[in-house]
Amino acid sequence: MKKGRKIVEDKFDLHSLNKFASLMAMGNGYLGLRAAHEEDYAGQTRGLYIAGIYNKATVNETSELVNLPDISGFKIEINGDTFSLLNGKIHSYTRELILATGEVKREILWEIKGLRFQIVFQRFVSKENLHLLASKVTITSLDNDAVLKIVTGIDAQQTNFGKQHLIEEKVRIYNEKIMQGVYQTTESSHRISLAAACTFQGETDVNFSAKNRQLLTSIKHEIKKNQPFIIEKAGALFTSLDQGVNDPEKDAFQLIEETLLDGYDTLLEKSAFKWQEFWHKKRVSIVSENEFDQTAMDFALYHMEIMTPAHDQRFSVGAKGLTGEGYKGHVFWDTEIFIAPFHLFTEPKTAKKLLTYRYLHLQQAKEKAQLNGYEGALFPWESAFSGEEETPEFAAINIRTGIRQKVASAIAEHHIVADIAFAVVQYFENTKDEDFMKKEGLSLLKETSRFWLSRAVEEDGQFSIKDVIGPDEYTEHIDNNAYTNYMAYFNVKQTLFFMGKYGDQDGELIERGNDFLNRLYLPVPNKEGIIPQDDTFLNKPEIDLAKYKEKQGSQAILLDYSRQEVNEMQILKQADTVMLLYLFPDLFPADIVAKNLHYYEKHTIHDSSLSKAIHAIVAARCGDMEAAYRFFQEACLIDLGPNPHSSDEGIHAASLGSVWLAGVFGFANVILKNNTLSINPKLPADWSKMSFPFYCRGSRLEILLTPNQVAVTLISGPALTVEINGNEYLVNEEIEVNL
Amino acid sequence: MKKGRKIVEDKFDLHSLNKFASLMAMGNGYLGLRAAHEEDYAGQTRGLYIAGIYNKATVNETSELVNLPDISGFKIEINGDTFSLLNGKIHSYTRELILATGEVKREILWEIKGLRFQIVFQRFVSKENLHLLASKVTITSLDNDAVLKIVTGIDAQQTNFGKQHLIEEKVRIYNEKIMQGVYQTTESSHRISLAAACTFQGETDVNFSAKNRQLLTSIKHEIKKNQPFIIEKAGALFTSLDQGVNDPEKDAFQLIEETLLDGYDTLLEKSAFKWQEFWHKKRVSIVSENEFDQTAMDFALYHMEIMTPAHDQRFSVGAKGLTGEGYKGHVFWDTEIFIAPFHLFTEPKTAKKLLTYRYLHLQQAKEKAQLNGYEGALFPWESAFSGEEETPEFAAINIRTGIRQKVASAIAEHHIVADIAFAVVQYFENTKDEDFMKKEGLSLLKETSRFWLSRAVEEDGQFSIKDVIGPDEYTEHIDNNAYTNYMAYFNVKQTLFFMGKYGDQDGELIERGNDFLNRLYLPVPNKEGIIPQDDTFLNKPEIDLAKYKEKQGSQAILLDYSRQEVNEMQILKQADTVMLLYLFPDLFPADIVAKNLHYYEKHTIHDSSLSKAIHAIVAARCGDMEAAYRFFQEACLIDLGPNPHSSDEGIHAASLGSVWLAGVFGFANVILKNNTLSINPKLPADWSKMSFPFYCRGSRLEILLTPNQVAVTLISGPALTVEINGNEYLVNEEIEVNL
Repeated sequence: MKKGRKIVEDKFDLHSLNKFASLMAMGNGYLGLRAAHEEDYAGQTRGLYIAGIYNKATVNETSELVNLPDISGFKIEINGDTFSLLNGKIHSYTRELILATGEVKREILWEIKGLRFQIVFQRFVSKENLHLLASKVTITSLDNDAVLKIVTGIDAQQTNFGKQHLIEEKVRIYNEKIMQGVYQTTESSHRISLAAACTFQGETDVNFSAKNRQLLTSIKHEIKKNQPFIIEKAGALFTSLDQGVNDPEKDAFQLIEETLLDGYDTLLEKSAFKWQEFWHKKRVSIVSENEFDQTAMDFALYHMEIMTPAHDQRFSVGAKGLTGEGYKGHVFWDTEIFIAPFHLFTEPKTAKKLLTYRYLHLQQAKEKAQLNGYEGALFPWESAFSGEEETPEFAAINIRTGIRQKVASAIAEHHIVADIAFAVVQYFENTKDEDFMKKEGLSLLKETSRFWLSRAVEEDGQFSIKDVIGPDEYTEHIDNNAYTNYMAYFNVKQTLFFMGKYGDQDGELIERGNDFLNRLYLPVPNKEGIIPQDDTFLNKPEIDLAKYKEKQGSQAILLDYSRQEVNEMQILKQADTVMLLYLFPDLFPADIVAKNLHYYEKHTIHDSSLSKAIHAIVAARCGDMEAAYRFFQEACLIDLGPNPHSSDEGIHAASLGSVWLAGVFGFANVILKNNTLSINPKLPADWSKMSFPFYCRGSRLEILLTPNQVAVTLISGPALTVEINGNEYLVNEEIEVNL
Repeated sequence: MKKGRKIVEDKFDLHSLNKFASLMAMGNGYLGLRAAHEEDYAGQTRGLYIAGIYNKATVNETSELVNLPDISGFKIEINGDTFSLLNGKIHSYTRELILATGEVKREILWEIKGLRFQIVFQRFVSKENLHLLASKVTITSLDNDAVLKIVTGIDAQQTNFGKQHLIEEKVRIYNEKIMQGVYQTTESSHRISLAAACTFQGETDVNFSAKNRQLLTSIKHEIKKNQPFIIEKAGALFTSLDQGVNDPEKDAFQLIEETLLDGYDTLLEKSAFKWQEFWHKKRVSIVSENEFDQTAMDFALYHMEIMTPAHDQRFSVGAKGLTGEGYKGHVFWDTEIFIAPFHLFTEPKTAKKLLTYRYLHLQQAKEKAQLNGYEGALFPWESAFSGEEETPEFAAINIRTGIRQKVASAIAEHHIVADIAFAVVQYFENTKDEDFMKKEGLSLLKETSRFWLSRAVEEDGQFSIKDVIGPDEYTEHIDNNAYTNYMAYFNVKQTLFFMGKYGDQDGELIERGNDFLNRLYLPVPNKEGIIPQDDTFLNKPEIDLAKYKEKQGSQAILLDYSRQEVNEMQILKQADTVMLLYLFPDLFPADIVAKNLHYYEKHTIHDSSLSKAIHAIVAARCGDMEAAYRFFQEACLIDLGPNPHSSDEGIHAASLGSVWLAGVFGFANVILKNNTLSINPKLPADWSKMSFPFYCRGSRLEILLTPNQVAVTLISGPALTVEINGNEYLVNEEIEVNL
């Protein structure tokens, strides 16, 4: 990765504290740490999370990702004045998330009572050792000697917005250096151990204390003019959920004890080396008139990497990754449809783990189906560690009426079942992993198919799928949602195919499956060429959405109309039929695709962050590059845009995944067909070059695109046939095709 | 009360945020509200508490006073800049707790980006309606028009230092004005309802929202130059524990609805009128060279009034009142010995309620006795709502050794049993309340006596009380603590007296009681005239305590010596034998009292806030006025002194009670003897006048002292014989005695 690729905040702003804490979050898939400032500010949300560590605060609530005790906070006093950027005068301020190394660095020239101090904060979560994180604070007094007091420790006063999930079991100081706190979740009974220690040079007066769930190290030091004082802190986290770990307490202690031998810089170097490998293997390089395109793509990849628990197939990716508490850290269809492809086409074993997470919870999905009167597996709309349905039964109370509406998604947003099946097939298509497919894959396909067979109802000799919610959540409880029906069809069809392939003899399933395929109603374009999103959608009245599109992402329409009223108009929150067109590029002829893209986009507010990039892809394939690039750019702004509160509760995981999708499946227009990989680039006018790695069926490729050329290099694996603009080429070493 | 009596903070200081939040706390015995600033600061502890509302966060913890959802916070933005005293420039700042009216008022001239704003915050807890509190914020833009945004609401993200005790049951907005939150404690299952509403004038854009346990009103207003914008907020609290309340939800709503008709000023006036009555009836007036003496006395009375749940006999006074979370809001002997006397001698029905609290928990005390192998009633060292022992079984972990020591107080600090009996007798002595004494009083006396009979062990024909902790908590597990033995003796003796008086025929108790009195070992002065604090104390080595006395209150000795080592030396944390001398002024001759005061004070660090004022009283009685006044002044500084963290977790209730004790029983030297009230004033040299109300056996007196005169006025009730410097006077209307 080129030096200097960074996310930069160049002024301190109280309003965007929590946004940048999310954007600049650090992590490694095992743990995630929000980039809350070292010093506290009212309203600043700190966050430290471990994949899989969920808890129910009370019996009637759903599980939430636990905000763990903080070890990133430092309270600094200089000559008795508390360091805060609200206090004193800021001469200069920069904070950077250095994507190349995974480090967040903040440099401040601060003046208080006429004296200036250079203060540098550095922090990272190790990519080399998943349990490790480290901080470094360097303070230089520029005008005079000064008395410094620093307090830092393990602070278990953190909550999930006031909810406490942890019992403090034990706090200890070992060897007058290592702090350790051991905690237990109140309901899920996971044990979490945090150890941390500070190192520093020079004469210091050090004290330890424990009170009110805070275990603290206090350091006093007389800092000399122009002699930097450096304090480093390393932290280790282990839990009873860790695989192969017997004693989180001992392990955390040992890791810190060993780590103390290395300094911050060495630890960072080890971690940065892993990041270097990552970028080397996975980066999508873009040469664009707009440098931001590359930044946004890097940002997306960085976050996909830190959000994904690639170390453990018992966990999946939360809607906000490990960067915040939005959606309580729950797992949605986002994983299979928006995030898994990046892994599948660069590191398929990670995609396999994400599917295994579903496989491990087939039992819970079957129980949910049964509870709802269906057969097979009905995967939960939201899930966490247990694999049970975690969607809150009721939505937040309507504060004016006092009514809590039942959340419909868990009851009716059933397309997730087929989304998972789709990802299973996609995984197999790109890996030919027969071992997985025979066992986990086929089980998932069969049980998801069984669900659809029981879900459909027979009417006039046809099967309908009634009372569902499609991806578009502004249209609820409708019949024969095109996306859902086509996906269910694909699900069952592929199941029968793989049953045949592996000689599965389940006659009843085969028979019912064939009947389902023969008789399932699949909406077709009407005489204007529009595929009806559902049975009633096209008959509903339309309104001018311009006003709401301007405020997209804010759900401003719900201020003017009730959900029920919105439901009765042609208003989409997000891609629905367009989503279908994206997943099945060849399902309809090009002109139908274009017509539907145009029609539905006009009716879409894009209030969901999942919408924009999908439109970019379909628009690119339709050749509407102006729209495609605009959608792409807008998708890139979902987290990185100017709204100071867009990402307070965490980044938008699926949206970031879709930035990669837009690049690779949109602009590079890569399509994996039955036996070939096709590339028909649709680069935006502003892009003069795009290159990216692509894994396909055992072969690792580097694909380079310019407006006039496609070059494909085989990095490893067998030779591969690639179709470029309609012509087939065998890629043995490298091919270059002029367009 | 004279106008202008105030506690003043004249500069904003981050270090003393929590101290002043405690000192300036408002309340009415039903609820207490910390004076945390309206705007948030990192590390600032907000607190709103209701007497009796305790909860256990987890099964193994003890109950703690629940920090309720906050309604005092206001987030203010002016032209997009967040109001904070760390931000911008403070031209002037004053905050006052106006003791006369119970209001806290803060006036700030604040500049941000070159524009100046006058901001005035006012707040009080109603003394007229126990469920009510109100705020007022006045903002004047001095240089230009400006855009104001104010957000305030009901914030249930509050915790007890990270522990959450409340489930959010419901949040509502009624009539586009009234916010209401209903909560339930997780273990004790109390329901708490808070309602609040804002009023303001002028064109404003108002929005309501609820998220993450916060129910908020957001107000936008364009403020014109020099036109003050006023926002008022009233809050109401009701709980399922309230007596005579059936529906806390409805009641809170109704109170706010009614209250909206009154403005802040009217509500304050009603409350201030009640405060006026209070001061009129209860104030101790002091004319001193040091004006602070009067301030400290007023401060003590103010806090005794707001800490005492005079409305409900099911509750008592916590060690920090309702001003903070120190000692988890638990009730100690502090109530009976340090706080109840103020009530007994000014408003005896309140003292009766505090005793009734104990009476209502006789059952739990009997169970505790039984559990510990004793008879009768062993009152818990710490108690809350249930009346069960709430002392944590183990002390905080020793962070270096990992060992949690058993807390000895619950096991051995048994003098509380006799302290309660003492208060019962004192109550009767001053009220002649036969109804109470026949039933509640005698029950308490008999059961506490039974405890002592079973607690004593026979050795060589004598009864000893072994393995106790006296008031001095630096000396643990000793035998025959003088204080404890004499108090136990008094307890049993008085019990037999009242049994006789009321013809109680419990022969066994009478017989065992007499035997106990005949044979209980009561330490007597040794040949140097020193009463041994316990069997071994006087044989222990002594060290020079000067260094620790300098840091008194900080327990600095425990940094140099272990608790066990301290235990083996002649080191006192607080008054112990001196405490005994205070409670029984006539037990020993004057020279013995003086010798013991001198001897024990030399060995006392005064690390307990209960110590100083008791020494002041005994020193005054000994005529050592220099020492007495010094002790008194030091006692007054326990909360009001310069230490910025002295009172972070709440004021020192007992210490404040003892300031009154020192005035009335020390300097006025009032002693209630069998049939007369004796007054032998010992005014400090700096005091030219002291006057105070005093209730005695149905008569309300006003006692006025000068260095040369005692004047006693009968305000109401029957004529009373008063002994002044050895001569008896019948007070019919008013007497003046020249000294």
